[in-house]
Amino acid sequence: MNVFWRKIIKSSVISAFLWGALLTTTASAEVLNQQQKQTMKQLSQTSMSSDLSYQLIESLTTEVGPRLMGSEGDKKAVEWAVNKMQSLGFDKVWTEEVTGTFWQRGEAQAKVLAPYPQNLVAVALGGSVGTGKNGLTAEIAHFDSLDDLNAVADNSLAGKIAFISYRMERHVDGHGYGQAVGARVNGASIAAQKGASAILIRSVGTDNNRIGHTGVMRYQANINKVPAAALSNPDADMLVNQLARGEAVKVYLKLTPSTDEKVVARSANVIGEITGSEFPEQIVAIGAHLDSWDVGTGALDDGMGVGIVMSAAKQIQQLTQAPKRTIRVILFAAEEVGLLGAKQYMIDHKDEIDNHIIGAEWDFGTGEIYKMTTGVGQKALAQTKELAAFLAPLGVEFSQANDAKAQSDMGMLSAAGMPSMNFAPDGSRYFDYHHTENDTLDKIEVDALKQATTVYTLFSYFAANAEIDFRK
Amino acid sequence: MNVFWRKIIKSSVISAFLWGALLTTTASAEVLNQQQKQTMKQLSQTSMSSDLSYQLIESLTTEVGPRLMGSEGDKKAVEWAVNKMQSLGFDKVWTEEVTGTFWQRGEAQAKVLAPYPQNLVAVALGGSVGTGKNGLTAEIAHFDSLDDLNAVADNSLAGKIAFISYRMERHVDGHGYGQAVGARVNGASIAAQKGASAILIRSVGTDNNRIGHTGVMRYQANINKVPAAALSNPDADMLVNQLARGEAVKVYLKLTPSTDEKVVARSANVIGEITGSEFPEQIVAIGAHLDSWDVGTGALDDGMGVGIVMSAAKQIQQLTQAPKRTIRVILFAAEEVGLLGAKQYMIDHKDEIDNHIIGAEWDFGTGEIYKMTTGVGQKALAQTKELAAFLAPLGVEFSQANDAKAQSDMGMLSAAGMPSMNFAPDGSRYFDYHHTENDTLDKIEVDALKQATTVYTLFSYFAANAEIDFRK
Repeated sequence: MNVFWRKIIKSSVISAFLWGALLTTTASAEVLNQQQKQTMKQLSQTSMSSDLSYQLIESLTTEVGPRLMGSEGDKKAVEWAVNKMQSLGFDKVWTEEVTGTFWQRGEAQAKVLAPYPQNLVAVALGGSVGTGKNGLTAEIAHFDSLDDLNAVADNSLAGKIAFISYRMERHVDGHGYGQAVGARVNGASIAAQKGASAILIRSVGTDNNRIGHTGVMRYQANINKVPAAALSNPDADMLVNQLARGEAVKVYLKLTPSTDEKVVARSANVIGEITGSEFPEQIVAIGAHLDSWDVGTGALDDGMGVGIVMSAAKQIQQLTQAPKRTIRVILFAAEEVGLLGAKQYMIDHKDEIDNHIIGAEWDFGTGEIYKMTTGVGQKALAQTKELAAFLAPLGVEFSQANDAKAQSDMGMLSAAGMPSMNFAPDGSRYFDYHHTENDTLDKIEVDALKQATTVYTLFSYFAANAEIDFRK
Repeated sequence: MNVFWRKIIKSSVISAFLWGALLTTTASAEVLNQQQKQTMKQLSQTSMSSDLSYQLIESLTTEVGPRLMGSEGDKKAVEWAVNKMQSLGFDKVWTEEVTGTFWQRGEAQAKVLAPYPQNLVAVALGGSVGTGKNGLTAEIAHFDSLDDLNAVADNSLAGKIAFISYRMERHVDGHGYGQAVGARVNGASIAAQKGASAILIRSVGTDNNRIGHTGVMRYQANINKVPAAALSNPDADMLVNQLARGEAVKVYLKLTPSTDEKVVARSANVIGEITGSEFPEQIVAIGAHLDSWDVGTGALDDGMGVGIVMSAAKQIQQLTQAPKRTIRVILFAAEEVGLLGAKQYMIDHKDEIDNHIIGAEWDFGTGEIYKMTTGVGQKALAQTKELAAFLAPLGVEFSQANDAKAQSDMGMLSAAGMPSMNFAPDGSRYFDYHHTENDTLDKIEVDALKQATTVYTLFSYFAANAEIDFRK
């Protein structure tokens, strides 16, 4: 939010004047009445001065901590979410089982043996097989990118560890992630196809801390499964510097992750509702994912989303008048290990997808929301601009693109035809911490959290009370 | 350096004009002649455009890495320094043995067991005893500061782990370190006196990374030795948040460091000289320490100092004319574990302390030098101002205090009467990385390194060629 608007919102005298201007604006197709506009004003103020979303994240990260699908922490997180939604006074709270497997990290050790022995900070990629308890030792075959690895002949890397040193770029919209993440997700099978016995990648992250970034990887069918790990950025630098000297670089790697494929890991989507007073079957869906990687406490990914959407619903729950449509908070299970919660939700709710009249998810960014993009019908687009006028004072611009899909889990609902909103936050610092031990409470940007919570609050109220058919 | 002066130095046209002004300035007690002033100008330009100090740090951190007193890395560092000094063309290069003990870190594990089980990132303090391989479990007794711990009754903490959560403050001159480091150095014995079975402190550091800061600690005689470790800042936050809920917090701690007191660890001060042409027995001493903690690669602490002083001497070595006085580069051994190299130097050179006509050490900071403080006689003070005029274009102000002691190791020489200089760099980011795994090459601020190298170069040339008796 820019400073001007922040000051204005904090100053009740000036804001009364400005809100007055907003409230008396007339347009041909106004969808909110005067009382609803007054409520939007009130919600903006109460939400900006509430620290509920921070308190929820503090509680989740302190009392639960890491919550990888299938772990003890994951079970506790489900209990935590049910209890919190109930104590916040949600009208309905329930869970829907999600099953999968439980991948356990084990130990990670990596070191350069020659020419210059040094320890390397490495982290196993999620889903990786292990090296065996004795580890493996091999010469490094260095590639600047996944494309370069892909370009060499099959079986040409026999007895070597492939190393991809591509460095993720920092951008406000996080698009550097898409350019970098292929090496993490697909690198192992490509390396195996080339004959390599393991793969190391430079962490998909923008920081320079000696902390590796984990994240999911996938093995292709019918290709030998080889161990996969990420080096921290400074360790990748050091390895590149050793390689630059032209001698063979030998590395020892030990990873001891495990997955018992026979044991079914059980988790759950946790769902809570503020029931609509006039159209209870019509759902305004706001979501986040409850699971996290095992390394940090998942404050940003996605504790921040959990705090925002629970708090937004609570803001509306505490109004004297119930929303016309139902506000459904969906905390998805097992996003990190492959959107298992979202997939299960699509199965469990296949008969009511059309009732999801619009949806939005928070699963990216640490900074303030700077852009709202709609993904709605043409008539609805004109009507939805009325919301944009309420978000502008928060520093949110309105994008003309109208091509939004909901983020992350809810992208599946968007793909199934749910009208969607995308609220784009500043993501320039997000990948400093993403999927690392460093994803902890102190990384929450308190002012940005309040602004984002307010945006989700205003959106939820607007979508639940303005009688817009977002598909039209 | 401010942008204006940086631009000026980079622009040969303008700089010719400005240097001209500097060179024709007349003062009653000028100590440099026109040719020497021209050489100062030339040195400023060659040093600012040289990346030798960076290359030295890159080499040390890539080819040697961590170099804790007594470790394999430490031995390699001594060889590295001798070889580098020789290949740089120093006139004399030699080593002087330093002995001590070799403390090995072993393993560190810490976790909260109750009320909310979570892992803690902890690092053993240097010199700590271990917990035994089974670790220990105890309730936390929480103190905001070392003073608060000191205030409780002896033996009142039986069966508990003392935890000091004091947070170091960030300041440009690093003075927050002095306020925080007492808990690290003396906390264990005070905790033991109060009956505690171990001590945990919040890391003495200004970052918010999940990386603990190690550093030396000392046991007082006749007090039970208890294990001592530092938590990363985010882990200390989380522990404080658990404690804030009012329930007993139980922590498991395992540290397995070891020291074989019977084995003598051998290291060496490495010394190199550019021999003086007129007064070879008169020594301008510039120093840094060669050892580092075992966790990072010691790029900042004190690879940066090593690079700066070796490079400064090289700048002068490559002039056509040798300096009048000898420039002695001293790379001290075993600074981190208690200034063992400096103590040995004082013994080895007790008969030539008076020949050290002036000295300066770099062992602090990552940013540009902003202040020069002298510690010289009154007549010399007036003469030394001539150096300040050459440093001003680099953004270095002249302090009137005239109370400088040399930093770190060389403080012992200052205490023994050696005239001293202190060049104060921006230290505001230094304690983000100090004594951590994160002290790696990428943390070097390249422009600041060039500026600092240039300051040490100009100081060394000035002190070796201006015939000032700095004691007078």
